[in-house]
Amino acid sequence: MKFCSGCASPLLYQVPEGDNRERACCPSCGAIHYVNPKIVVGTIPTFGNKVLLCKRAIEPRYGFWTLPAGFMELNETTHAGALRETWEEAGAKATLGPLFTMFDVIRAEQVHLFFRAQMDAPEFSAGVESLDVKLFAEEEIPWDELAFKTVSKTLTLFFEDRRQGQFTLHTGDVYDHTDWPLDSFKA
Amino acid sequence: MKFCSGCASPLLYQVPEGDNRERACCPSCGAIHYVNPKIVVGTIPTFGNKVLLCKRAIEPRYGFWTLPAGFMELNETTHAGALRETWEEAGAKATLGPLFTMFDVIRAEQVHLFFRAQMDAPEFSAGVESLDVKLFAEEEIPWDELAFKTVSKTLTLFFEDRRQGQFTLHTGDVYDHTDWPLDSFKA
Repeated sequence: MKFCSGCASPLLYQVPEGDNRERACCPSCGAIHYVNPKIVVGTIPTFGNKVLLCKRAIEPRYGFWTLPAGFMELNETTHAGALRETWEEAGAKATLGPLFTMFDVIRAEQVHLFFRAQMDAPEFSAGVESLDVKLFAEEEIPWDELAFKTVSKTLTLFFEDRRQGQFTLHTGDVYDHTDWPLDSFKA
Repeated sequence: MKFCSGCASPLLYQVPEGDNRERACCPSCGAIHYVNPKIVVGTIPTFGNKVLLCKRAIEPRYGFWTLPAGFMELNETTHAGALRETWEEAGAKATLGPLFTMFDVIRAEQVHLFFRAQMDAPEFSAGVESLDVKLFAEEEIPWDELAFKTVSKTLTLFFEDRRQGQFTLHTGDVYDHTDWPLDSFKA
């Protein structure tokens, strides 16, 4: 960020009064241009014991498999965004379940949210950002061809929790996350 | 947003190729300037049966009470951000618990995350953004002087869940949220 998006003046990086971090400040109009992490919303769409994955038709990670997910837009909820991505990338309608993982990807300046979701029918089709879409049983998951760490971690935890008969919530840094067993929800 | 932050050219609002939404596009350098919701992170800090609130020393809602919370920064996790805000605004150290509410505030283009948190000791002090900080029992909560809808909703659900002996997760639009009872976590 070099120029003020409000008045086109060159920006200065300095700590604004009352703040403790360097920000992009406009010496001309006084605007402070904050940059914050972006939210990626997606689902773990299931039909029976299978999970729906998309083969990416776009960079980064062209040709690798992913859960349907993408940037949350303005004027939508996290729930609506997750279902929108499931429809846009995988052509699948689903009923949303609870949040399953919320992972920080600090290097990418993103927070990834994955909700469980039950597909209404085994119907799906590749959207413009997907080369292919397919239902995978656990033993069929292409672990070596998954696009992102948040996806492989979410799938690993999903199958682990499912085997234990109980899903819970997993949050924090994707490289060092925290599991919240159902005990943590006791008052 | 009127000018490109990369090259200072006037921006055009149009739908980029392969997209389906209008974005701020730079006809000169080709940059597309996406705008997405921002994350606000905070805690429900408790000591015994009391909850810690801060009286705001800044606008919006100067003089109203709030849970400690603020914009998530780059280079931090949601967990670290929530505890940072608890320290900065309320001078309190706490041990983080699970995510309790994740509310969309569509009009403000924000998603608010509140984690439960247990204070290590009944020690706190007003940070520069707070006029006062105080522990409140449920019957002492200044309901008519709370700063934000996400705060009043989070506190209401917190006391409801606590009475039932079981906390769960509450997500979605703050005006029309979804509760996820522990049953939803069954595989």
